[in-house]
Amino acid sequence: MRKKGEMKPIDVKLIGTVESPLIDLESAPRQADEDAPEAWLVFEPEILEGLRSIRPGDRVIVLTWLDRARRDVLSVHPRGDTSRALEGVFSTRSPHRPNPIGLHEVEITAVDGRRFRVKHLEVLDGTPIIDVKPILSANVSER
Amino acid sequence: MRKKGEMKPIDVKLIGTVESPLIDLESAPRQADEDAPEAWLVFEPEILEGLRSIRPGDRVIVLTWLDRARRDVLSVHPRGDTSRALEGVFSTRSPHRPNPIGLHEVEITAVDGRRFRVKHLEVLDGTPIIDVKPILSANVSER
Repeated sequence: MRKKGEMKPIDVKLIGTVESPLIDLESAPRQADEDAPEAWLVFEPEILEGLRSIRPGDRVIVLTWLDRARRDVLSVHPRGDTSRALEGVFSTRSPHRPNPIGLHEVEITAVDGRRFRVKHLEVLDGTPIIDVKPILSANVSER
Repeated sequence: MRKKGEMKPIDVKLIGTVESPLIDLESAPRQADEDAPEAWLVFEPEILEGLRSIRPGDRVIVLTWLDRARRDVLSVHPRGDTSRALEGVFSTRSPHRPNPIGLHEVEITAVDGRRFRVKHLEVLDGTPIIDVKPILSANVSER
């Protein structure tokens, strides 16, 4: 195993940005199934080649960097409900965690150049996009 | 939408490291269902509080930073098979992509202090861990 001291810093590149009607944390739903509005993924021109196989109707996983989350939180009340016991953040979907990476399963509903419209994305306007992956069940080894 | 110029750099913190018998890319299986050996997640002491709700038997999603992948690749032959047409990396699970984030569904089989043994993790020894999340189906809104 390599020593930590040998590690290069982990620098993530923005590959796109979310355009969403959600502009503050109070209006953002806590889970994607709670009335998330349509949003657009607006990708950087230099990575478009990597998206060339994605079509309207596809379901994909979008990874975001939840840049307005707190990174110093290790325990939370589930769903913000203080009547519930504190839980470790790694057992929750809380955006507040050491690396506030959002994982979102969305459906692409339209493609317009570098703009991809999606259903079921619950992040704030301006949130950086850092990766897109196919949905892959454990038993499907293609792609 | 905020302008790109206003963005802070995205700096990801290592929260742990994978210990695995896989030491080179040639021996690493391409998908988790292809004979991935057992591995250990070794977490940094300062984030352990965030893991306190995780028990042996739990299935979780582990996010890694695939630090030996290439970041300048936007198209690949699926599963490295050059007889197949090139595909955009964002439609594939290729580790080679602008941000080489690995997404792994694993089962925790043992917990020993800050060491968590897992089944079905196919990454190289020394790979940084950047997040852990619960497996959450779209229709379950708890946690």
